[in-house]
Amino acid sequence: MKVKRSERLVDMTDYLLNRPHCLIPLTFFSKRYDSAKSSISEDLTILKRTFQRRGIGLVETVPGAAGGAKYIPYILKEDADQFMDEIVTILNNSERTLPGGYVYMSDILGDPEKLRYLGRMIATQYLNQRVDAILTVATRGIPIAQAASSYLNAPLVIARHDTNITEGSTVSVNYVSGSSKKIKRMTISKRSLQQDGNVLIVDDFIHGGGTINGLTSLITEFNCNLVGSTFFAEGAYSNNQDFGNYTSLVKMETNAAGEMLIMKGNYDEQIFSRND
Amino acid sequence: MKVKRSERLVDMTDYLLNRPHCLIPLTFFSKRYDSAKSSISEDLTILKRTFQRRGIGLVETVPGAAGGAKYIPYILKEDADQFMDEIVTILNNSERTLPGGYVYMSDILGDPEKLRYLGRMIATQYLNQRVDAILTVATRGIPIAQAASSYLNAPLVIARHDTNITEGSTVSVNYVSGSSKKIKRMTISKRSLQQDGNVLIVDDFIHGGGTINGLTSLITEFNCNLVGSTFFAEGAYSNNQDFGNYTSLVKMETNAAGEMLIMKGNYDEQIFSRND
Repeated sequence: MKVKRSERLVDMTDYLLNRPHCLIPLTFFSKRYDSAKSSISEDLTILKRTFQRRGIGLVETVPGAAGGAKYIPYILKEDADQFMDEIVTILNNSERTLPGGYVYMSDILGDPEKLRYLGRMIATQYLNQRVDAILTVATRGIPIAQAASSYLNAPLVIARHDTNITEGSTVSVNYVSGSSKKIKRMTISKRSLQQDGNVLIVDDFIHGGGTINGLTSLITEFNCNLVGSTFFAEGAYSNNQDFGNYTSLVKMETNAAGEMLIMKGNYDEQIFSRND
Repeated sequence: MKVKRSERLVDMTDYLLNRPHCLIPLTFFSKRYDSAKSSISEDLTILKRTFQRRGIGLVETVPGAAGGAKYIPYILKEDADQFMDEIVTILNNSERTLPGGYVYMSDILGDPEKLRYLGRMIATQYLNQRVDAILTVATRGIPIAQAASSYLNAPLVIARHDTNITEGSTVSVNYVSGSSKKIKRMTISKRSLQQDGNVLIVDDFIHGGGTINGLTSLITEFNCNLVGSTFFAEGAYSNNQDFGNYTSLVKMETNAAGEMLIMKGNYDEQIFSRND
């Protein structure tokens, strides 16, 4: 039975939103709704226009017999700005200051609504790049890495500091912790990454750069390519060290009075400046 | 400028899908689209019908001046069944068998599409209950717990085996590991749970029941209530032990020939049998 346009629009929106970066053939929708391809094309035009106007993302349509539609999530600069202003305000609340110059932020990285924003922000950054896997290291970086994994629709791979019998054969690397200068070790399952894949690093915090070095070594061990690395927060002083290009969403700095200040990281410059 | 119905339907679908379990006032939509409340009500009727027909979830509409709409994600029994059949087939592939009677499953718990299904399944189970937080313990259970957190729109709280200076004051409990009989310790930040909250435990694996005991002790320390506990996989023999009610999505059993078999867990009985 032919499905009405109103129902098609609602269901197609749900269908595409749940399958980011996947090409869905026109014929699939045509069968699903028992509707002509020309009607489906018109529906997609409405979706495309609405997704763009509302800042939901891009609906890419591929014409021809093998054609279809692909939803590519992104976030508009003004939405990202507004969200990050809110995050910075929340983090600068003095009740969050912990001894030793740390700031409590675990709740933000556990809030599903904020994780959706963070995931979309990271997905926007790598919109045009092939990403085959998101790599993070246990524990605190997992939620933000998973949020990125969801919007980029690429598998999440978790390196660990301990080894676990449920991972099978593993690959381990040693690295020097940037903050403590101790030698540490991280491990991932041999099955978790494909050779020659494009891997994106996502983690919660970059300080001394040790973690990024460890994760990069793992990527090298698998002959994979590093697409980039994005961190929720960048610690004070990390600027003085050389550990390659990375993106940070927020940055911590200590002012002259020795107080910890949270401000926006370099995400803006990296993402939006080149398009403005 | 008044927004057309077609655009309203697409945008409202996106808006609601991104805010599960949140009541969105009619007036909000009415302003957003510069449209009469009666038109918005008609839109919601279309969404409600489509969400139901396509198994996306429930759109609950609350009438009156303070009224609005709430999207409650669920999964249909047939969709859950089909998905779990696929998972069981994947897991029974002999290449996944690891020494010691373990099965490699980390890739499944890192696959964004599968995590969306798993999250919806868990959200379906607790559809009618107030859930204030999802509690898990590092590391492997985090992705499935986060998926549930996303669809229930409740914060994710991660207990850890180590302590971390970035968590501030913490609460720790000791528990006896079910498999090794060793005494272990798990810790969460004091800020991470509110007193008297309703807490749902989600983890990847239940074997000896030690972890569930540890997590339950943490819940007790905060005077919180345990809503339930759901595990991706249930190990062989765990049936013989008493650690309360829990739900498992898959179950491992060893047959007479000593081979490991994966089958569906008790999710089906727990969720669907009472409604059939």
